[in-house]
Amino acid sequence: MIRFNSDYLEGAHPRILERLSATNMEQTVGYGCDEHSERARELIKKACSCPEAAVHFLVGGTQANFTVISAALRPHQGVIAADTGHIACHETGAIEACGHKVLNVPGDDGRVTAEAVDAYVREHWANESHEHVVQPKMVYISMTTEIGTIYTKKELAALYEVCQLHGLYLFLDGARLGYGLATPGSDLDLPFIAAHTDVFYIGGTKVGALFGEAVVLVNPELQPDFRYLIKQKGGMLAKGRLLGIQFETLFEDGLYFEISRHALEMAGRLCQGLASLGIPFASSSVSNQQFVRLDNGFCQELRKTMDFDVIQPGETESVVRFCTSWATLPENIDALLAEIHRLKNK
Amino acid sequence: MIRFNSDYLEGAHPRILERLSATNMEQTVGYGCDEHSERARELIKKACSCPEAAVHFLVGGTQANFTVISAALRPHQGVIAADTGHIACHETGAIEACGHKVLNVPGDDGRVTAEAVDAYVREHWANESHEHVVQPKMVYISMTTEIGTIYTKKELAALYEVCQLHGLYLFLDGARLGYGLATPGSDLDLPFIAAHTDVFYIGGTKVGALFGEAVVLVNPELQPDFRYLIKQKGGMLAKGRLLGIQFETLFEDGLYFEISRHALEMAGRLCQGLASLGIPFASSSVSNQQFVRLDNGFCQELRKTMDFDVIQPGETESVVRFCTSWATLPENIDALLAEIHRLKNK
Amino acid sequence: MIRFNSDYLEGAHPRILERLSATNMEQTVGYGCDEHSERARELIKKACSCPEAAVHFLVGGTQANFTVISAALRPHQGVIAADTGHIACHETGAIEACGHKVLNVPGDDGRVTAEAVDAYVREHWANESHEHVVQPKMVYISMTTEIGTIYTKKELAALYEVCQLHGLYLFLDGARLGYGLATPGSDLDLPFIAAHTDVFYIGGTKVGALFGEAVVLVNPELQPDFRYLIKQKGGMLAKGRLLGIQFETLFEDGLYFEISRHALEMAGRLCQGLASLGIPFASSSVSNQQFVRLDNGFCQELRKTMDFDVIQPGETESVVRFCTSWATLPENIDALLAEIHRLKNK
Amino acid sequence: MIRFNSDYLEGAHPRILERLSATNMEQTVGYGCDEHSERARELIKKACSCPEAAVHFLVGGTQANFTVISAALRPHQGVIAADTGHIACHETGAIEACGHKVLNVPGDDGRVTAEAVDAYVREHWANESHEHVVQPKMVYISMTTEIGTIYTKKELAALYEVCQLHGLYLFLDGARLGYGLATPGSDLDLPFIAAHTDVFYIGGTKVGALFGEAVVLVNPELQPDFRYLIKQKGGMLAKGRLLGIQFETLFEDGLYFEISRHALEMAGRLCQGLASLGIPFASSSVSNQQFVRLDNGFCQELRKTMDFDVIQPGETESVVRFCTSWATLPENIDALLAEIHRLKNK
Repeated sequence: MIRFNSDYLEGAHPRILERLSATNMEQTVGYGCDEHSERARELIKKACSCPEAAVHFLVGGTQANFTVISAALRPHQGVIAADTGHIACHETGAIEACGHKVLNVPGDDGRVTAEAVDAYVREHWANESHEHVVQPKMVYISMTTEIGTIYTKKELAALYEVCQLHGLYLFLDGARLGYGLATPGSDLDLPFIAAHTDVFYIGGTKVGALFGEAVVLVNPELQPDFRYLIKQKGGMLAKGRLLGIQFETLFEDGLYFEISRHALEMAGRLCQGLASLGIPFASSSVSNQQFVRLDNGFCQELRKTMDFDVIQPGETESVVRFCTSWATLPENIDALLAEIHRLKNK
Repeated sequence: MIRFNSDYLEGAHPRILERLSATNMEQTVGYGCDEHSERARELIKKACSCPEAAVHFLVGGTQANFTVISAALRPHQGVIAADTGHIACHETGAIEACGHKVLNVPGDDGRVTAEAVDAYVREHWANESHEHVVQPKMVYISMTTEIGTIYTKKELAALYEVCQLHGLYLFLDGARLGYGLATPGSDLDLPFIAAHTDVFYIGGTKVGALFGEAVVLVNPELQPDFRYLIKQKGGMLAKGRLLGIQFETLFEDGLYFEISRHALEMAGRLCQGLASLGIPFASSSVSNQQFVRLDNGFCQELRKTMDFDVIQPGETESVVRFCTSWATLPENIDALLAEIHRLKNK
Repeated sequence: MIRFNSDYLEGAHPRILERLSATNMEQTVGYGCDEHSERARELIKKACSCPEAAVHFLVGGTQANFTVISAALRPHQGVIAADTGHIACHETGAIEACGHKVLNVPGDDGRVTAEAVDAYVREHWANESHEHVVQPKMVYISMTTEIGTIYTKKELAALYEVCQLHGLYLFLDGARLGYGLATPGSDLDLPFIAAHTDVFYIGGTKVGALFGEAVVLVNPELQPDFRYLIKQKGGMLAKGRLLGIQFETLFEDGLYFEISRHALEMAGRLCQGLASLGIPFASSSVSNQQFVRLDNGFCQELRKTMDFDVIQPGETESVVRFCTSWATLPENIDALLAEIHRLKNK
Repeated sequence: MIRFNSDYLEGAHPRILERLSATNMEQTVGYGCDEHSERARELIKKACSCPEAAVHFLVGGTQANFTVISAALRPHQGVIAADTGHIACHETGAIEACGHKVLNVPGDDGRVTAEAVDAYVREHWANESHEHVVQPKMVYISMTTEIGTIYTKKELAALYEVCQLHGLYLFLDGARLGYGLATPGSDLDLPFIAAHTDVFYIGGTKVGALFGEAVVLVNPELQPDFRYLIKQKGGMLAKGRLLGIQFETLFEDGLYFEISRHALEMAGRLCQGLASLGIPFASSSVSNQQFVRLDNGFCQELRKTMDFDVIQPGETESVVRFCTSWATLPENIDALLAEIHRLKNK
């Protein structure tokens, strides 16, 4: 069975495992105060051209999302997200469990637009009884989005401008940030993101690490006491150096970007193949997640040897997802395409 | 200035004030354990033909909503509501502040339908990753709805059936229940509601009391330890007898229903008048809240002597709301209609 | 049966009921934006010599406590209170339900001392792992305390100074503030309290009102968006004018202070009587709550005609509480003393 | 510098790292549904002789604590813990952030006793106003305790009996369970714990794993929907197999117990040495954490080459902690003792 279900099917990039082994019997202080974590923080600040940022390492994405949001908002404030946003749909109400409402705006192919934010906030303040309604105070976006689209420099700058105008924080969930930056057509880079958000994170779990997300608090308002929040919300890893070592490895010589590019090359190979086989695409994704429509019978046949997620089951055809990652082998892409070809001609 | 902004513009029905005065220097134990509260509970259980229910008195609607929901749900569970539902729009995230997500379904003229609930719940359980999504466990409806519509026996029974089928609690917010029951065309009554919900409340604040809502916990699963929840959530009134005395007065001889009927007569008088003046209605409300469209200039003129809420401001015309209540004077309705007439012919 | 169980046994001072009746059919806007509430706010600010304060009316004490604390603290911050503090013992975890730990310090006869706060805060910051511990950010005190003691000017000033030094908010729960100020020996007054706290409230429920507490936000940091918090936490009374009218009545000509003095005169009459009857006092309370030790058999006999709370049941004798209030009749004090006398000589 | 600060100074037992490397490029489904996790669950259930238990893997201890407590309690319920308990002191209010009060009882050398629980619960229900107080519903204990003591079979059985009697859940935090079981004099074992608690966890982070705690839900009441809670609280690791692989390695052939015994042998070597050097012990710890008193000047000297935590700083002498673990080298113990010897004779 070859799997394309997600970008977290394998362990870690071999160099990360090697580094963990090489440092295994070192004795370090706990909770992220060790030298590996310190060095990783410096590398990331340098990569972001943002020396004043505060960088913290957390284990996973949901944890990063609610820790950041909980640290930033007062109880009556909420966070605007696309209706397809991860915090809106896939985190079992983790944000609400911290007391905050997720304020949905319709996504533009999964993206939040500056216009939608502007309209939402203006409507809030125009309401004479606005204290009866949750106050918008943050905008949450993802890069790549949950449906595989990306933001351009222009779009991000416009969003940040409208957030600045209305006193909102802009928070970018970068669980798949490496893949987003490596997507052909993306003009974003880390320094631009750091200059146009208040807080964002660089995902490791899906991009070569065993686990881990590097939260970059750019806005000084969001920095005080963040370690208290990490501890309270369950994100303070005793052996914090495990996160430090992984991000050190990913950022000391560009490994993070290199393996992200690989995933996108694999996605390109896949897309070309699917297109030439006449498989219809189901979204405008340009990144490492590709969504296509498959006839249900065909889908069932294909899943005998290839595994992938059915995202939206339908009566006769369904939307399915194929993911590539740092670990995807070209021969597996070819095997998938060959199997589709074989089944189509059966 | 004559006001039609809401159904809580005045104090209380005079008989309630008289009773509060008559009992003022009685010494009673606190926190709702007094004899007035006890008698009021018995009167309500009798009116509902539901001797096994537990009845508790709370000060207001938002408080009643989050106390009930908080008592009923586990942390990962959410409550389905119409997108226009009060808990979804008008409570500053009070439900989320208790940790629970409000799960929106599109309203059918403000109503939640059995079909919408059934589809929502089935989709949840069909999702292979359902633990990544908030689990629906309760359905919240209002009678009357936030846009003035009502439920029929058939609709409520269908909702309750689908809730029973899927193990969901059905919760009816009756902040305007008196007006809903008194609405011409309503076939509902308290015993039917008690037999077809798990919990509901009978609103006093908008129906003749100074303040107060009587929560009726029908389902025994929801009854244990409810007083702890009331205390924790800030709803345990020291002088609980104030609530008891008010509901005693409202339910000992049918005052609650009598004054509700008055409000609906006033609404009928208003509707007829508006219709004959050619004012276009903006909703299918049948109850004591009437929504109409007014040209903005006309609206501005009218507000010089008559006050009412602008619900949805528009470029050239806006949706406004006129409310009647137990306290509405027929001469005020007539004055409003006369003023509209005068301005139309100016 | 004559009751001394609490200071909320009766309804309201007759002048309050009269005022509610006189204004009953006035039409006012809701949620505390009416003219009565506005006037009451002005009267209170004037009484506190604090024109920049923001004044809000809430229904009850627990509600006031958690709304203020929730508005002031970030998630990782806690509130220091005496181990006998109301928020520590008698609110069913309402503060914790808002996410905040109550940090106990040993009370000095129910009071929090400046020394205890100083030591607590210094220990926190001296801890190298302080982010593993809740950060103290507020001090909660009560006047009178839960055991009937009071703060002097000197004590309050010292507390405020230490709070200022460490960046903590000082919050005074004044559920019984009237009685505290009227206590013989008290040198405090409202302007001094306003000048030496960040936030406090003036209790109405126990001091002549049907219900209601006036929260005075002195520190401008605590003022923004407070109405959102009130709404979210269930404290936004639809007919907000009910609170405004009551505090208007209490503060327009000194009624609040006058009836407080009455309660303390009654307490003095009671204390003298108890002392001359040789009943041993169980606390150093100087205010309207008096705690004495009664032999259990005697207590049982006395409760046949007089009701009061058993605070601390013991094997052979118990601590019981007698409360006086604005409503206490001198003849009831005398009847109580006579009955004690009769039983002692039986 | 040789460190004795904690039992999480190094990475993982080498066999765990080897296994992670060997399985690195396997493709598995996420979120703990893979075969390694499944096998680890079976191994643990077998080790506990508890086939009906539900086993879940979480990343860390604080996360495990609040996820279990949040899953088990209703909003008005609290958890009894020793005043030195980890949830009471060292988790930045994580339990309160989930809405629940930690109810302190005085520890008996860090242990909660059956008598203390019994008294606490009886006092709660004897209080006529018990709904004004948090309801005790769970007892939290640690093995080993935060101060290094352990529970015997007799003590645990007595606690469980009193919990059963009063309808409380008994929850054992086993962050150091391996070390507790390996402590000379301990008569506990996993099957006995499984038979005398409602839920417990087996700590990996401190006992040979990179990270990870295995939560064992014994009581069927606590099992439903636990995965929703894990996800909501941020504990659902994308690459769940990382936890499965580690516990598989620890439990397939007794490695967990073997390395725990090693830590206790090292602790024994340390204790003997300290005793023969005349260093005074500061607690009755019998396990892998040893607390001693050091003169401050001496302490400062010693810390030039040996690192350890100062637990309780004093004016002239302080309490410090030396930890041993699965990774402690006998030569390091000897070096520490030699250095102490050298400094004492300087």
